[in-house]
Amino acid sequence: MMKPLKNNRFIQALARKPVDATPIWLMRQAGRYLPEYRELRASAGDFLALCKNPKLACEVTMQPIRRFELDAAILFSDILTIPDAMGLGLHFVKDEGPRFHKKIDSKIAVDELSVPDMRESLSYVYEAIECIQVELAGEVPLIGFSGSPWTLATYMVEGQASKDFRHIKRFLYQEPEAMHQLLDKLAISVTEYLYQQILSGVHAVQIFDTWGGILSTPIYQEFSLNYMSKIIRGLHEKLGQSCVPIIIFTKNGHQWLELMLESSADCVGVDWSISMENVKKRVAGRVAIQGNLDPAILYADNTTIEKAVVELLDQFGEAPGHIFNLGHGMLRDVDPEKVDFLVKTVHKHSQS
Amino acid sequence: MMKPLKNNRFIQALARKPVDATPIWLMRQAGRYLPEYRELRASAGDFLALCKNPKLACEVTMQPIRRFELDAAILFSDILTIPDAMGLGLHFVKDEGPRFHKKIDSKIAVDELSVPDMRESLSYVYEAIECIQVELAGEVPLIGFSGSPWTLATYMVEGQASKDFRHIKRFLYQEPEAMHQLLDKLAISVTEYLYQQILSGVHAVQIFDTWGGILSTPIYQEFSLNYMSKIIRGLHEKLGQSCVPIIIFTKNGHQWLELMLESSADCVGVDWSISMENVKKRVAGRVAIQGNLDPAILYADNTTIEKAVVELLDQFGEAPGHIFNLGHGMLRDVDPEKVDFLVKTVHKHSQS
Repeated sequence: MMKPLKNNRFIQALARKPVDATPIWLMRQAGRYLPEYRELRASAGDFLALCKNPKLACEVTMQPIRRFELDAAILFSDILTIPDAMGLGLHFVKDEGPRFHKKIDSKIAVDELSVPDMRESLSYVYEAIECIQVELAGEVPLIGFSGSPWTLATYMVEGQASKDFRHIKRFLYQEPEAMHQLLDKLAISVTEYLYQQILSGVHAVQIFDTWGGILSTPIYQEFSLNYMSKIIRGLHEKLGQSCVPIIIFTKNGHQWLELMLESSADCVGVDWSISMENVKKRVAGRVAIQGNLDPAILYADNTTIEKAVVELLDQFGEAPGHIFNLGHGMLRDVDPEKVDFLVKTVHKHSQS
Repeated sequence: MMKPLKNNRFIQALARKPVDATPIWLMRQAGRYLPEYRELRASAGDFLALCKNPKLACEVTMQPIRRFELDAAILFSDILTIPDAMGLGLHFVKDEGPRFHKKIDSKIAVDELSVPDMRESLSYVYEAIECIQVELAGEVPLIGFSGSPWTLATYMVEGQASKDFRHIKRFLYQEPEAMHQLLDKLAISVTEYLYQQILSGVHAVQIFDTWGGILSTPIYQEFSLNYMSKIIRGLHEKLGQSCVPIIIFTKNGHQWLELMLESSADCVGVDWSISMENVKKRVAGRVAIQGNLDPAILYADNTTIEKAVVELLDQFGEAPGHIFNLGHGMLRDVDPEKVDFLVKTVHKHSQS
């Protein structure tokens, strides 16, 4: 089904096998900092229109691949496609981010929430993947993704991004069973969604747990990590040996690295607030590690960027299993020239 | 100068001396969740009017002390009083938080920024402290506080709260010297501000580093922790043996506990995203520890709250040096009955 890959570094590193240079891709590598993206988006109307049009989503996915020597492409989409498919009415408010017309704020709302057929309701995503595969022509691997059940739930309960997440936390502490019911529905949906993405041809998947880091240790285990583990088990059961590598990433969650290792993920992503030296020591080669440059370092001059790259590579050391990335998404006003310099610098300093 | 304290648990615990029960106070224990606060604020006009009126600030400080068996009072004020005194025009936009009329967004703006006489320009704060001391009449100790230089700088450069802090990070990476110059001015001001608070009678001070956690390890050391250490050294030099205990708290900064121990702080605050067991082990009795219950647990029923309290106390164990607190500020819609239950439960289960 898949074409053999010309650049296989990313997949090799995920399997903790030796590579000729450390692979690099960047969270939100397609997006607002690229003038060609801004142009396309202006003509498409809005962000969701871009995501829902397979040809445009394919084009946006390809934009950074044409510009930079990145070692992987990532599907251009939104993390909230699943709640949108569930009928919550996703829309975007300028400068304020995602909003839902309908909130899931009671046990009744959870009961009534239907799990749609992921194959039909998100077919635009799989069509985009097929389109991207044609465009990529095996140049680099393609990453699929989903939000984690917990992260999807935060938006569904809060109705939007939040500063204190008090609605979902109130729900969690007052109706833990209804919260589990919601997360169960989401885990089933995410499993099926990623399964369909894999059938459509992605070479790896990442589960973005953007808001797991707002929890305490036992609550993180029970309400976030638990459901990511369930998804991983589900994919392993459905696909067996054909399952692609799975990356999990909990922002502000590096204190739980040891717990994440028990999830059977192939790779754990980390943000920049922990040193790679610390991460490396604790993970001790049991999974691959992705990260973890501060995205804001791309505001610095080349000398500073190069110094930070060398330090990070040195901290990881010689062992295989490092995927270079930012610790979170690209900032919207970064100079694309800096991104080019970053990518080249990572390859230059890690060449064996 | 100071009256002897009737309840000395908090001060004893800060000195890691045995106590009859674990002391507890709660970040943002005075505030919106209390009906008497909402009433006073409605009559005062706005939040800043409350802070700047010593009698009203005193009254708000006292409100939770009258209701609950808390072991410390904390001065009611805002963390942004210093930049306000510097002439940046602090104001509050409903539901959006603090804003400044003037931003510090260039080297020139930093050069022009004057360090006002902290004694004169923030006299309303010291008057509030004197008023509170009279009201408290030695019942419990009073905590003074300031924002950390880094945290003050984030608001001054961004002009408001931020999601990605890209303006201050751009500034930091593009003009590190100007950033140091700004932080130096702020550290001088904070030192003098806390010194005046101590002269006015507070029994301990806390430095709130709300936004240190957005940094990478070397940047945190150089641009945040470094300046907190400077303030602590400054206070120790000015006051010698008369210096009160100093607490530092970097939200999302538990990965840097070992570094914080080098600051000479008497106590380190931690948020709820790390287990107390982990913190206890790493700190190993070298300083007192403050924290770290998830504020949202106050949404739960009493059984759940009690279970969480017992777990936290058990994780800390028998050794002295624990100050019970939330891992961040009280949420605005908590039921005051739950706070009463929490305070009593902490005392009940920690009684020796």
